[in-house]
Amino acid sequence: MFLDAIDLAATFVFAISGATQGVRHRLDLFGVLVVAWAAAVTGGLARDLLIGAVPPVAIADWRYLAAAAAAGLLAFCASEPIARLKRPVQLFDATGLCLFAVTGTQKALAHGLEPAMAAILGMITCIGGGVARDLLTLQVPSVLRSELYAVAALAGAGSIALGYWLGFPHLPVALFGAALCLFLRLMAIYRGWHLPVAGGKGESSLETD
Amino acid sequence: MFLDAIDLAATFVFAISGATQGVRHRLDLFGVLVVAWAAAVTGGLARDLLIGAVPPVAIADWRYLAAAAAAGLLAFCASEPIARLKRPVQLFDATGLCLFAVTGTQKALAHGLEPAMAAILGMITCIGGGVARDLLTLQVPSVLRSELYAVAALAGAGSIALGYWLGFPHLPVALFGAALCLFLRLMAIYRGWHLPVAGGKGESSLETD
Amino acid sequence: MFLDAIDLAATFVFAISGATQGVRHRLDLFGVLVVAWAAAVTGGLARDLLIGAVPPVAIADWRYLAAAAAAGLLAFCASEPIARLKRPVQLFDATGLCLFAVTGTQKALAHGLEPAMAAILGMITCIGGGVARDLLTLQVPSVLRSELYAVAALAGAGSIALGYWLGFPHLPVALFGAALCLFLRLMAIYRGWHLPVAGGKGESSLETD
Repeated sequence: MFLDAIDLAATFVFAISGATQGVRHRLDLFGVLVVAWAAAVTGGLARDLLIGAVPPVAIADWRYLAAAAAAGLLAFCASEPIARLKRPVQLFDATGLCLFAVTGTQKALAHGLEPAMAAILGMITCIGGGVARDLLTLQVPSVLRSELYAVAALAGAGSIALGYWLGFPHLPVALFGAALCLFLRLMAIYRGWHLPVAGGKGESSLETD
Repeated sequence: MFLDAIDLAATFVFAISGATQGVRHRLDLFGVLVVAWAAAVTGGLARDLLIGAVPPVAIADWRYLAAAAAAGLLAFCASEPIARLKRPVQLFDATGLCLFAVTGTQKALAHGLEPAMAAILGMITCIGGGVARDLLTLQVPSVLRSELYAVAALAGAGSIALGYWLGFPHLPVALFGAALCLFLRLMAIYRGWHLPVAGGKGESSLETD
Repeated sequence: MFLDAIDLAATFVFAISGATQGVRHRLDLFGVLVVAWAAAVTGGLARDLLIGAVPPVAIADWRYLAAAAAAGLLAFCASEPIARLKRPVQLFDATGLCLFAVTGTQKALAHGLEPAMAAILGMITCIGGGVARDLLTLQVPSVLRSELYAVAALAGAGSIALGYWLGFPHLPVALFGAALCLFLRLMAIYRGWHLPVAGGKGESSLETD
């Protein structure tokens, strides 16, 4: 019940980020809603297909569709203010990231995966939506190049999987994992923390060749 | 039996549209066949995976492969006349759209999905192939930006799901849904009907930033 | 046991090709690892989802993750020598191709698919990773345009499926299929063998319109 609420909240904020990107690429209303929905549910769909939980919850439960559609409509109607508010959208997105890290890892563990692979599935839950959103609008997925995005998700998911495996109580472990994920992401946004890039240059370039 | 024939016919026409795009991007014969197959079956594969009908019919039944391959070969050999005939290809595609809306929605309902999600899966059946075709050739999926494409699919699928849910007889409901989908798509092609685009401009621009 | 070792070896060499492409697009360390993993396992994931073998072996078995991560780290640290060695990477990739053709086709047959579709699934096992790798870095999938890539995979997979169907002993059939696949791919690399391209020009152009 509580997990459901968290999952729906993360769905909503990811759908906002998807819709914002759809608006920026001048899709029509419906295209914006589709990208919002894809950004919100693709990670969870991939996780559910890979662990064999079919039909995936985002297909079986209409509330995920409703949350994504509401976020998409909101972002479509308020596209100009949202476009100016780059930072708040990033913060929203960081919140969704750490929420999905918790719910994704827990669901994978509940389906009997070993801890290392549950952490990977938690990360897939987090970044799947961003990958779908960026591919649908022909971007190199920013989760693969922006500073500490996927790695923040993996750190959160991994610490949750490890804590559960060690038998620690669930709520503190989940809170710690979410906080670690959020902390890394915020450091990346505000302090520019990033991983090394091959070839010796310190900054990550943004051209796609 | 009758549904099978419809499904195979839609597979054939979607494969034509995929192969045409592959030829335009100067893929070789085999690449054209792969894009034709992807355009024809991706929607149905996604639907079947999401409702848990594995192996998907397009994998279990060789006739889908044969229909897609025949269409791909035809489009490859007759690529120049087909490239000049933009309008007929659009009409073919619109026919495939409304056929898939019917079969996709019916299959999702038969697997016990609630009407709203069955309509979404009917739409996914329709647009999945186009999304795969466009991503494989590095286009922003035209089903997300061209006039009333996905929305025509959803209107058709939604009216079928609603009609079944209300207990109306199946054949008239299916015909109505297909006709509604076709009507909206034809109005988009011939009259330029379209949805609003965010940011105030009336026409949908085609640049991808 | 032996098949497992082959599968892991192919996973390693495909991950090298994925990581090399990630480095070339200047992803950070983690992005490179994700692309390496995607290039290594996407084909097998797609095959397992389509035949209903969930959770897919690449998710259930941590060794696939370890093989891909090791290859990704190696390619990241040694990116400059690898970038200069275009030909060896192509040869590595050709080896992975024929290994996956064998294991993919055998697994599909073992799950009861008919020979023609088992050959298609063997090919999907081979090219799925390359498609994922190229889409994540915004390329038109090279497996669809480079000379005899997917067709080499299909020839190998098809000859294995045919040999098994005819009741020939498994090991010689598998070796023949692998050799056929490798031969076609090497002819493409060294002799430039290729399929016809629509529109009458002999050489395949590389622009994407």
